[in-house]
Amino acid sequence: MSRTIALLQGDSTVGDLHGNATRLEALAELAAIHGATLGLSTELAICGYPPRDLLLQPDFVVKAQSKASALSVSIPILVGAPLAPDHPKQLPSNGVVRCGPLASKQPNGNRIVARKQLLPTYDVFDEARYFKPDNRPGIARTIAGLDLGVTVCEDAWQAADMTPSTYAADPIESLAEWGRQGVKLDATVNLSASPYHSDKLASRIHVCRTAASILNHPFLMANQVGGNDDLLFDGNSLVAWPDGTVVIAPAWKEGVLMVHLDDPNACEWLPSTASDALDVGDDQLRRLQPDDDGREHEREVLHDLTDAVVTGLTDYCRKSGIKSIVLGLSGGIDSAVAACVAAAAVGPENVTGIAMPSRHSSQHSIDDAAHTATSLGLKFDTIPIDSMHASVEGSIGGMLEQGAQVAGENLQARLRGLIVMAHANAQGSMAIATGNKSELAQGYCTLYGDMAGGYTPLGDLYKMQVYGLADVFNLRAEQQGLTAPVNASTRTKPPSAELAPDQIDEDSLPPYPVLDAILRAHIEGGLDGESIAEQGHDPAMVLDVLTRLERNEHKRWQMSPAPRVSSRAFGQGWRRPLASRHDWRRS
Amino acid sequence: MSRTIALLQGDSTVGDLHGNATRLEALAELAAIHGATLGLSTELAICGYPPRDLLLQPDFVVKAQSKASALSVSIPILVGAPLAPDHPKQLPSNGVVRCGPLASKQPNGNRIVARKQLLPTYDVFDEARYFKPDNRPGIARTIAGLDLGVTVCEDAWQAADMTPSTYAADPIESLAEWGRQGVKLDATVNLSASPYHSDKLASRIHVCRTAASILNHPFLMANQVGGNDDLLFDGNSLVAWPDGTVVIAPAWKEGVLMVHLDDPNACEWLPSTASDALDVGDDQLRRLQPDDDGREHEREVLHDLTDAVVTGLTDYCRKSGIKSIVLGLSGGIDSAVAACVAAAAVGPENVTGIAMPSRHSSQHSIDDAAHTATSLGLKFDTIPIDSMHASVEGSIGGMLEQGAQVAGENLQARLRGLIVMAHANAQGSMAIATGNKSELAQGYCTLYGDMAGGYTPLGDLYKMQVYGLADVFNLRAEQQGLTAPVNASTRTKPPSAELAPDQIDEDSLPPYPVLDAILRAHIEGGLDGESIAEQGHDPAMVLDVLTRLERNEHKRWQMSPAPRVSSRAFGQGWRRPLASRHDWRRS
Repeated sequence: MSRTIALLQGDSTVGDLHGNATRLEALAELAAIHGATLGLSTELAICGYPPRDLLLQPDFVVKAQSKASALSVSIPILVGAPLAPDHPKQLPSNGVVRCGPLASKQPNGNRIVARKQLLPTYDVFDEARYFKPDNRPGIARTIAGLDLGVTVCEDAWQAADMTPSTYAADPIESLAEWGRQGVKLDATVNLSASPYHSDKLASRIHVCRTAASILNHPFLMANQVGGNDDLLFDGNSLVAWPDGTVVIAPAWKEGVLMVHLDDPNACEWLPSTASDALDVGDDQLRRLQPDDDGREHEREVLHDLTDAVVTGLTDYCRKSGIKSIVLGLSGGIDSAVAACVAAAAVGPENVTGIAMPSRHSSQHSIDDAAHTATSLGLKFDTIPIDSMHASVEGSIGGMLEQGAQVAGENLQARLRGLIVMAHANAQGSMAIATGNKSELAQGYCTLYGDMAGGYTPLGDLYKMQVYGLADVFNLRAEQQGLTAPVNASTRTKPPSAELAPDQIDEDSLPPYPVLDAILRAHIEGGLDGESIAEQGHDPAMVLDVLTRLERNEHKRWQMSPAPRVSSRAFGQGWRRPLASRHDWRRS
Repeated sequence: MSRTIALLQGDSTVGDLHGNATRLEALAELAAIHGATLGLSTELAICGYPPRDLLLQPDFVVKAQSKASALSVSIPILVGAPLAPDHPKQLPSNGVVRCGPLASKQPNGNRIVARKQLLPTYDVFDEARYFKPDNRPGIARTIAGLDLGVTVCEDAWQAADMTPSTYAADPIESLAEWGRQGVKLDATVNLSASPYHSDKLASRIHVCRTAASILNHPFLMANQVGGNDDLLFDGNSLVAWPDGTVVIAPAWKEGVLMVHLDDPNACEWLPSTASDALDVGDDQLRRLQPDDDGREHEREVLHDLTDAVVTGLTDYCRKSGIKSIVLGLSGGIDSAVAACVAAAAVGPENVTGIAMPSRHSSQHSIDDAAHTATSLGLKFDTIPIDSMHASVEGSIGGMLEQGAQVAGENLQARLRGLIVMAHANAQGSMAIATGNKSELAQGYCTLYGDMAGGYTPLGDLYKMQVYGLADVFNLRAEQQGLTAPVNASTRTKPPSAELAPDQIDEDSLPPYPVLDAILRAHIEGGLDGESIAEQGHDPAMVLDVLTRLERNEHKRWQMSPAPRVSSRAFGQGWRRPLASRHDWRRS
């Protein structure tokens, strides 16, 4: 008997029950044709992750569950779906249903295979808001001749001690206990929607290896791929054997990982054949020996980051029905790289770059912007803002003269925002904001100016990472025999907002390598100012950086979604009080 | 022996441990002078509610707990504070500590009186994210001669069946069980941070009466007052006796409710004497007979809504250090009412209104704007945008001619946003956005135009409620012998964005009374389109309204905080997926 389980690595759209069902059916058919006997979807694949408050609508849950139970497939599939509660006052479960041959003859309730036990409620996760936890081990018997342990995402993380707080239960340990009592399982599967951040894959590998080792049989994790709002999912579905051997599906791609339980070397990757399948990065299957922890080298991390950011914008556009993008091109590194991302996401022919020089813009700004647009093949327009600027100054000159200098500087950024938005409104395009995490953290950006736009593709990249992405885009262009889109001038000039004569960012901010290090230590490392200074940074500079971070929370409240690529991003996982800028450490 | 418990109705600022301690000490002193033997703060009073991710910083929790335990007070006070966990991997508790005479001689740990048992994790509440639930009844023995049951907010709501889901435990029932087993308590207290929405007080009265009846002794609830970001707390601290008699402290005011356990008629209200105390609305104590459910009449509800919105902006400014406000005055109802709110919040002398007529503005627009500014005593400026508008059209005319008409219309709104922001930046003021919930729900507003501003005071008021507030502000002005700020012209003209010739809102939207009813039924009532149509609305109109609501989620993502006055607002309690506008009901 064949022992092949297909991990269906799909890109579900939140709320699109019909579309998700169709995508799942296509992946299941691909798996069936290639001889899989059983398929496994990702967590909540029928409704996409995270469905957020759609789950508060009872008819949504009922419809999702029944859609998942009735997929038209020729092999049995275990599908992630919300499950309606027994009583109206109870919360739904985050569960797994069985569909396919035989299952279709059973009533809906009998098709339930498992319910999630550990509900993460930290960082970007709100599962205690939506679900009731279960306390029974998930076991599916003799489906296509296999006996399987069935777990959902977080269920597997407690055993590896990889959760921030300690749950009362440990589903992996419970399954192991059943094993010790004589229940023989062929494998344990895990339906996941585990969000991406840099270095996350190594954690997942550790989790799967730990589970396989405890359970003493293969442990298979099917993980969602694609972007939903600010959350990215990298795919990288994987299987671990008890000896530590691991096989990993490609990231940023839809397809099927065919897992031959008895032969790691026979595993294969089947790319999705759908015309609109997510298809970023390469198709390589990775095989890790037991002593390889799966951590990537710095260069590979940058390529992965690039693919992550491209996936975020690609899916945001596809899922929102956005066909074209417009952005301001300043000749600086941020807008150049944002243009590269936009071109990769919707095709260069659907991107318009607009250079909007002011009286403070240097000629190199216009030339460098033109270089990026031409190399990428964008539509390009130049609209000087000088006469508009003068007209506005004529009308509100008195207001500006009496006040802070920044008012006049911001005027230019806001005129540019107004032009980009006019183009977007006229053409039905989406404007994107070009800011990066370092400047957004410091408030070194203009609300309704360069922050204008429906999506901020670089919003979770520190400034130095933006340079890294520029190198990746240049390398990729050169490998295809094309001109590098980010030229040396853009790459090497000192960053400047060009809103005042001879202005450069370093007049107002620490050098970016230092700023990035301080921000990362605080935002992601959770260190306070004192601890950061102890790492060798000037204490006054650290205090300035952290103070600006606090004081600009109100600006970030209004930033558009940015794809999350770091362990702590500004957005859904960052719930800060806003109207209180008090330094409690000093009180 | 005196049996007087003082409910300290304070306006804590999130994160300001020192300031909150000082405010609590002052209220406690006021209570002590007037003969209270014991004081009770609100939930998490030492750090303000909701502290959100500040609670993820372990040293914040430690510092808050120790600050609460060490208040300098002359009578015993039970203070709401986060409590550090026993082990680093555990979450803190949402607890109550004792401070004051005697307590100060005990170690920190011995001063813990109770820990919250039921952790709300729905709507705006995220408590499972931050806290570990307790399962022991809170009982404080012989504090100032009293034996008390001690509960925290949600702990009391299960017994009245007022929680959306059913908790496994019921702290009120547990206390009653102790009573049946012979433990005699004088009263049970409840430390609350129960957010406001219209009609919420009637729910709280029901909760307190239910608890008093089950426990057969007085039930006292001290509730936070004031605004923190988008959340408002109305105060209305109250006590219920087993026979249903209720005494309620004023809303929107800091002070002390002195509760004489043995005599409802002896209860009194002591207004805070602090110079910066929150002081909106009137100082009246309400006494309800057992058969009065406490629901207010429509006129009182409008006065209460007005006070709520004023409190939101007042506190947002005070807590953020904002001293002055600027807004655009169009002569329409929204900006007129927003101006009234701003004048009440920071004083009319600190508010600047700017009329910005365009070629489409009527003379009445300018006259009506001037009337509002003059009546309120604002600074007033008129800046025609026509020449700027022409200049921009000259520069980007080609772009505008080829595209959708809305691009040209939005240009005017964005030029106005740019002017208001220039004033704000020049003067260090905060711009406010003047939109209401009805138009924000429909996307009938311009991102970076009239949506620009750090706070949206009317953002949770339906359009017809804005008219209601106009009447209240007019009435209050007249009662003081002043000119009504919203004149008949503003009050009766058909709402218009004035962005195109003869444009009125009803060309694009249903009449506001109808629109408001449909929105309210869906957003707050949770009804789908079919059910709303069954109430007698045109099904096609309902579908249009709900479709616009879904499609404009991306705009609302970028709106600034608005004070929450309805049972469902856009903001922290509204977690919608953004990039998925699929109609799952049709799939």
